Amino acid sequence: MISDIPVVALLSDFGWQDAYVGIMKGVIASINPRLTAIDVTHQIPAQNLAAARFCLMQAVPYFPKGTTFVAVVDPGVGSQRRGIAVQFQGGYLVGPDNGLFGGILSQYPAITAVSLSNYSYWRTSEVSSTFHGRDIFAPVGAHLASGVPLYCLGEPIEPDSLVQLPLPAARAVREGMAGCIQYIDGFGNLITNIPAAAVAGKNWSIILGEMRLAGCQTYSEVAVGEALALVGSHGWLEIAVNQGDAQTQLQLEVGSQVAVLIDG
Amino acid sequence: MISDIPVVALLSDFGWQDAYVGIMKGVIASINPRLTAIDVTHQIPAQNLAAARFCLMQAVPYFPKGTTFVAVVDPGVGSQRRGIAVQFQGGYLVGPDNGLFGGILSQYPAITAVSLSNYSYWRTSEVSSTFHGRDIFAPVGAHLASGVPLYCLGEPIEPDSLVQLPLPAARAVREGMAGCIQYIDGFGNLITNIPAAAVAGKNWSIILGEMRLAGCQTYSEVAVGEALALVGSHGWLEIAVNQGDAQTQLQLEVGSQVAVLIDG
Amino acid sequence: MISDIPVVALLSDFGWQDAYVGIMKGVIASINPRLTAIDVTHQIPAQNLAAARFCLMQAVPYFPKGTTFVAVVDPGVGSQRRGIAVQFQGGYLVGPDNGLFGGILSQYPAITAVSLSNYSYWRTSEVSSTFHGRDIFAPVGAHLASGVPLYCLGEPIEPDSLVQLPLPAARAVREGMAGCIQYIDGFGNLITNIPAAAVAGKNWSIILGEMRLAGCQTYSEVAVGEALALVGSHGWLEIAVNQGDAQTQLQLEVGSQVAVLIDG
Repeated sequence: MISDIPVVALLSDFGWQDAYVGIMKGVIASINPRLTAIDVTHQIPAQNLAAARFCLMQAVPYFPKGTTFVAVVDPGVGSQRRGIAVQFQGGYLVGPDNGLFGGILSQYPAITAVSLSNYSYWRTSEVSSTFHGRDIFAPVGAHLASGVPLYCLGEPIEPDSLVQLPLPAARAVREGMAGCIQYIDGFGNLITNIPAAAVAGKNWSIILGEMRLAGCQTYSEVAVGEALALVGSHGWLEIAVNQGDAQTQLQLEVGSQVAVLIDG
Repeated sequence: MISDIPVVALLSDFGWQDAYVGIMKGVIASINPRLTAIDVTHQIPAQNLAAARFCLMQAVPYFPKGTTFVAVVDPGVGSQRRGIAVQFQGGYLVGPDNGLFGGILSQYPAITAVSLSNYSYWRTSEVSSTFHGRDIFAPVGAHLASGVPLYCLGEPIEPDSLVQLPLPAARAVREGMAGCIQYIDGFGNLITNIPAAAVAGKNWSIILGEMRLAGCQTYSEVAVGEALALVGSHGWLEIAVNQGDAQTQLQLEVGSQVAVLIDG
Repeated sequence: MISDIPVVALLSDFGWQDAYVGIMKGVIASINPRLTAIDVTHQIPAQNLAAARFCLMQAVPYFPKGTTFVAVVDPGVGSQRRGIAVQFQGGYLVGPDNGLFGGILSQYPAITAVSLSNYSYWRTSEVSSTFHGRDIFAPVGAHLASGVPLYCLGEPIEPDSLVQLPLPAARAVREGMAGCIQYIDGFGNLITNIPAAAVAGKNWSIILGEMRLAGCQTYSEVAVGEALALVGSHGWLEIAVNQGDAQTQLQLEVGSQVAVLIDG
């Protein structure tokens, strides 16, 4: 049943102000009106590859198996950076080779990958130098979701050759883990790069400068307006404020250091 | 024909910045790719139950009969608040039991209701403590829209037991009605809690402090930049500025008092 | 295949904060749940007809042939302005007669047009004076996309009688072209009203006051943070900053004058 109604999931930093997202969907519907297009998000901060990588990593596992993900956060558009399509256990990834897919591929390794060199599957061979989402990635994604085999899209490439973002990793220290804020969501929740697995079954707390936040199960364990630490829905330790905005209240940014104390 | 392509309508305060809305749609498509997901809005101000209640009340009557509405504005997520599904004349409502559905149910009473205790229809029995939209409400909505009977989703509950928001009501006074601003839309239009029925066929005006705005039929009855009162498209008296923003110009807020003078 | 799954594309200045867009989609799904609704954008600045005209002109060519475009930026709603439906080579246009469609019709002339006087295809004959998107344009668009012939929707009108926006046009001058900024996108890119055709195969640069920006092929031809001129993906000359925001950096606005120097 799923294969009858293939899904193309879209992520970009285009925002909703302009027609760019609508244009990509128009291109997809022009190729195959039976595809279902679902927006992951289009409000990645402009050209923020780390935020795009995080949102994709967080979202991909919840989509139907076989979904084609078209992701366009592309500061190098028009330069020599490759366009790629990658097959992984959950489906397909299409977009620029700039590290966008590194998060999801760290969890579900690439099976095969190609460089998008076959312009028969592009919208046109005369591509714009600034909007490969419209001219290459959306049409390639639509063809792939419609059944065109991956190997038809271009030259095979080594999955190991895909670009990786240089991101800080959490590391074990004597008392627990040291890490940082990797993403801040629209509610102001501060999402660390420390995985929930590191504290499973243990008592733990997060240290922020002078402040210590005990690990909780739910927002409502602290008073309204108070900060807490918990395992977020995405599987990372998170700092939040009950019915409030932790970013504003605690004045932390992406990259701010955090420590996790594990009591045993 | 409608029953062939069931609609799941979604409302939340998740915004479009993160992947949360996309994840809910991924979960829905994973359960039944033939469902049509339509966004009512996802930009309810964070945890603002009154705004969510108003938008649902305003939108529900325009959707196909039988639509399943999944609404997730959920400050009590992870606490003991119930998850519910409610059948009403227009379809089904799924979400937390926190007053969100009080507006629509005041117009179209609940027929039957259940507490969402049957985790067979959840995404997983190990639910996140912070994202029931993904783990409970979206999957339950998808199953309901796909034909699972309401009574399978959990224990029956009394519709009278559903939580109500304590909202100020408009009241009749000697010269007309006294009420307040219940919602401010994205254009800055100030929507009162005084129903159009109160002034039907009458001459009326709205009193705001020292200002008196005669009830008009259309924006263009006043000059560009001037304030007016009219019956809004949602059926409530509304204060607007022709080609302008009444909230900014008049400096009113949700809860600000207004009086309606009815001349007869 | 395309005619089996007709597309209704939507553009408005309603934003995503309120339920207005969702309500239009509910109305469309109520009339024909088999239609695919695609958002072009709903974040046109409030009542900005020039921005709406530009976004439509830019997006329409990328949608499937036969798409019905419903566009609602409507400062004159409730006044005597006409509602119209227009057939053109790419499909159909539905909305207020206020110049919204002038851009696309300058590229693909109107074939036939009607004034929307037949209220059998409205949602109700008792229309709101403020939300014709819900009561007239969305339902008329849904019926048109479902196969109702254009001539059934109302009285025929002369395509030449459609309202035109008074917009500044680019003009040839001795050294090249003189024009202005016609649109600023969400990345801060400044899109001029000078068509790419004017510089095809030539060396060219853009003059902004004291500054001269040589025409480039891609963002990456200049250093990160530097301004450049290039042919935008929409076919107009554009001023951008590599990985930056040209509007903020150069402090230009819609209407700001630009000159193009063509070297031959």
